[in-house]
Amino acid sequence: MRQSATFIPTLRETPADADVKSHQLLLRAGFIRQNTSGIYSFLPLGKRVLQKVETVIREEMEAANSVEVFLPALQQAELWQETGRWYSYGDELMRLTDRNDREFALGATHEEVITSLLRDEIKSYKKLPLNLFQIQSKFRDEKRPRFGLLRGREFLMKDAYSFHATKESLDDTYNEMMQAYTNIFTRLGLNFRAVIADSGAIGGKDNHEFMVLSEIGEDTIAYSDTSSYAANIEMAAVKAEYPKSDEALKDMEKVSTPDQKTIAEVAAFLDTTPEQCIKTLVFKADDDLVIVLSRGDHEINDVKVKHASGATIVDLAEPGEVQELLGCEIGSLGPVNLPSSIKVYADNAVKSIVNGVTGANEDGYHFINVNPEKDFSVEAYADLRFVQEGDPSPDGEGIIQFAKGIEVGHIFKLGTTYSEPMKATFLNDQGRAMPYIMGCYGIGVSRVMAAVAEQFQDDNGFTWPDIIAPYDVHILPVNMKDETQRELGEDLYELLKSYRYEVLLDNRIERAGVKFADADLIGIPVRITVGKKASEGILEVKYRRTGETFEWKREELLDRLQQFFNK
Amino acid sequence: MRQSATFIPTLRETPADADVKSHQLLLRAGFIRQNTSGIYSFLPLGKRVLQKVETVIREEMEAANSVEVFLPALQQAELWQETGRWYSYGDELMRLTDRNDREFALGATHEEVITSLLRDEIKSYKKLPLNLFQIQSKFRDEKRPRFGLLRGREFLMKDAYSFHATKESLDDTYNEMMQAYTNIFTRLGLNFRAVIADSGAIGGKDNHEFMVLSEIGEDTIAYSDTSSYAANIEMAAVKAEYPKSDEALKDMEKVSTPDQKTIAEVAAFLDTTPEQCIKTLVFKADDDLVIVLSRGDHEINDVKVKHASGATIVDLAEPGEVQELLGCEIGSLGPVNLPSSIKVYADNAVKSIVNGVTGANEDGYHFINVNPEKDFSVEAYADLRFVQEGDPSPDGEGIIQFAKGIEVGHIFKLGTTYSEPMKATFLNDQGRAMPYIMGCYGIGVSRVMAAVAEQFQDDNGFTWPDIIAPYDVHILPVNMKDETQRELGEDLYELLKSYRYEVLLDNRIERAGVKFADADLIGIPVRITVGKKASEGILEVKYRRTGETFEWKREELLDRLQQFFNK
Repeated sequence: MRQSATFIPTLRETPADADVKSHQLLLRAGFIRQNTSGIYSFLPLGKRVLQKVETVIREEMEAANSVEVFLPALQQAELWQETGRWYSYGDELMRLTDRNDREFALGATHEEVITSLLRDEIKSYKKLPLNLFQIQSKFRDEKRPRFGLLRGREFLMKDAYSFHATKESLDDTYNEMMQAYTNIFTRLGLNFRAVIADSGAIGGKDNHEFMVLSEIGEDTIAYSDTSSYAANIEMAAVKAEYPKSDEALKDMEKVSTPDQKTIAEVAAFLDTTPEQCIKTLVFKADDDLVIVLSRGDHEINDVKVKHASGATIVDLAEPGEVQELLGCEIGSLGPVNLPSSIKVYADNAVKSIVNGVTGANEDGYHFINVNPEKDFSVEAYADLRFVQEGDPSPDGEGIIQFAKGIEVGHIFKLGTTYSEPMKATFLNDQGRAMPYIMGCYGIGVSRVMAAVAEQFQDDNGFTWPDIIAPYDVHILPVNMKDETQRELGEDLYELLKSYRYEVLLDNRIERAGVKFADADLIGIPVRITVGKKASEGILEVKYRRTGETFEWKREELLDRLQQFFNK
Repeated sequence: MRQSATFIPTLRETPADADVKSHQLLLRAGFIRQNTSGIYSFLPLGKRVLQKVETVIREEMEAANSVEVFLPALQQAELWQETGRWYSYGDELMRLTDRNDREFALGATHEEVITSLLRDEIKSYKKLPLNLFQIQSKFRDEKRPRFGLLRGREFLMKDAYSFHATKESLDDTYNEMMQAYTNIFTRLGLNFRAVIADSGAIGGKDNHEFMVLSEIGEDTIAYSDTSSYAANIEMAAVKAEYPKSDEALKDMEKVSTPDQKTIAEVAAFLDTTPEQCIKTLVFKADDDLVIVLSRGDHEINDVKVKHASGATIVDLAEPGEVQELLGCEIGSLGPVNLPSSIKVYADNAVKSIVNGVTGANEDGYHFINVNPEKDFSVEAYADLRFVQEGDPSPDGEGIIQFAKGIEVGHIFKLGTTYSEPMKATFLNDQGRAMPYIMGCYGIGVSRVMAAVAEQFQDDNGFTWPDIIAPYDVHILPVNMKDETQRELGEDLYELLKSYRYEVLLDNRIERAGVKFADADLIGIPVRITVGKKASEGILEVKYRRTGETFEWKREELLDRLQQFFNK
């Protein structure tokens, strides 16, 4: 492509409203532009990178026996009503009515559409399994669009859906998808982990997120420093052991703790440690108020409370509700002398506390020398806290560390979450109608592009990996008014194109400094400068990622490029 | 692809609700499914064809120096308000509000978006011309979606927009696009014409439609039987000459014509011909009522009335308005004795009528022996009628004939229709700010697929041209339980894939009749049956389009295929 005929609006200054490196550079190097909050246009260079990401994904999906389809973005409300998501999805689902006042959703995801498509067509277990994917724009009205392509409202996604007669078949496909995703992100050069994750609004149970490790990630990953174990911090199990001191149990005693509210304040005031304190929280678990206990230095994880209590929705109780239940403020709560109607759940660590401290359910007072079982009883002990750095990894290998991650992919075992309400059934080998067992597998295509952009850059611009660089080679005739340079530039351009290289020729009449700065910004792997030595047939070459420079004779160009690209 | 792993739900019966051949067969052969009125899913075979159409378009657009971008479907209302189309586009534009009650349009077309993108970035004539295209889903809420993919509400479109500093530059790009479109439709094997067309809602002047000739077309094309002239019937100029009889002018006379209302009735009652009658219609041209005359055997073309009168909106007047203006019913209208405030436009043919017939503006009466100029006067004579079969072609070569056409592409010279209201300007070589001069160029990608499907089929199914067939070769082991057949089928499958053929292997355990019928339906160019002669290494081959059959030895397979595909 001749640079004069394409559209690469580079910027000298960093746009003020761009909050992360990838977004800043995608704007500065002319890859994208924002249309309005969370909505972007891909300019020619951005579109090329996006298309290459798509190609890698398409190749690996097809290699894993997933077949491409193309489903509509306009989805009739009736489908979403069948699964109830029309009501539960909330404001993120964009909705509209057509000229006849029929309601539609704009595709945020396609479980309903594809399930409705198959239920009319696949009626026998003999035609299963089936794994279908598409690459298509998705619409989600994010409350806070940010970080450019990382959290937009209209974005490109690869979504795949698999259909099975048996759980074993789903397991096989899930594992194939796990491998396909690993291949995709590896080929794209990303530093990522497959992370055990919560499933969010999609439903279902087993699922993994693919997280690119990055300081701007919005999620925290707990991973083992020696094994491949990684989990979303909300999902990481705590397998720590809590040895119990053999100190003698003392008698509980109420003490005045005026104005001491936080664990840290109370511990300091009573000359003890947060580890000796029993933190007490009140949660609303569906319609009941329950008490949850943890050690003072631990944080309670509401996802685990949800599992332990068996409730569907779990939230911290409001101060007013707490006051009404126990007659005190939140800083003075404790598990002693509770009405027997209130269930108490405690984290495993609480069981080992000896002669601890807890609130007296009376403002300004705490109990000291409190001992579980002796002074209060517990419905159940369970793993209820967030994992912490330094905890043992739950797989028994190594120590937990934290990292921030950008979610770029997500694979789920949906089971029959969608097929059951939608009555999407097949006849099994006994002739019985059974709901499809389903999986779904997503990759944020435009988000992947941003994640790569975040990782592959230096102070001067992008350092794209070969596989998704917008072009292979950038040719810069320094002075387009010099006939020798101009003609050699054009010759090399035609030559390399004929060898199937993707080439950008900077045929603009611009100062050399502008051309070099733009080339660094754009970040094409190999830059060939045609300058003063053009007349001697000598080319100045720079590898963008390493910064190495060379002088190549024109006649060795093809060999050298072949070596560089391993072609 | 192994057929067991993909999704090709063929149907034995023709779906009752499919109204045209392409739609019926796309459903029967399992290429598409309808989700709801005007909205379709592309199943694996349909997606493959669609992608190949895209590839042809992409190649030809790039060869013509158009550069690919990807713009959002969600377009903020403010952009459409700048050009006024937010108000004028009507119900076809789908609209929604986001969670903050901001209004959006779903992209029906992208003039506003792309013009807004460039106006901030391209500020000098030195960076022009620029031609950008995208391939993307478009949304138009058609009043009557029909004919399957031919008139849908969500459909895939290639749209391109060019930006110029001069009209000459626009002319050059327009001609390049004309050539690119000709290449595209020629490569796809379509029988098409580039037709002079009206511009519809997009605005602008010079424009051509690319029409595939087809009996199911919704538009009528007037074309020359000997030259390349072709025009939408609304736009075809009439260059007929009307020799005037040398009969002596008689005196006008009012005659009673009770209950004779149509031209045919009046002519028969008065024993004359429709050619001798002066048909009189009242149009509302913007705010004025005007009279338009034509010969009784001609039809008045309101597009031409619009041009002649200089009005923006032209419509037939309501009977009530006519009654109020002239005091009679529509069947008795005439141009004699009109108030001088009413303008009269007449088609050129009227000028040559001698001693004609026309209504007397009195119910039940007509004038005979009416002569233009003598008995009534005319504001202007012009070409105001629809062309008819048998008229001379306006380019002076041949005779006009009619055909029905499916519009698959449209190229426009927009001029400054969008850049002016959007204040999208560049500095010209004098340093003056000028609005971009623009062109736009569309192809209905999914509609092209349907047009090819309409043309390439026989009684048994599709006969796809090689270039967009879903696969190159279909291998059918007749009996998958026969080890020789199964293994040879698999061997050939792997062999041909390694030579980069796209192969579908029918590895289903099905009766031979089902396999053959499905293969004919799907329409892959070369079918290789692996049957009883497999043990002798003999393959039964059928060319789908011609129906020719052959026996090939296994070792000659590659050569033969190479010959077939000219590879």
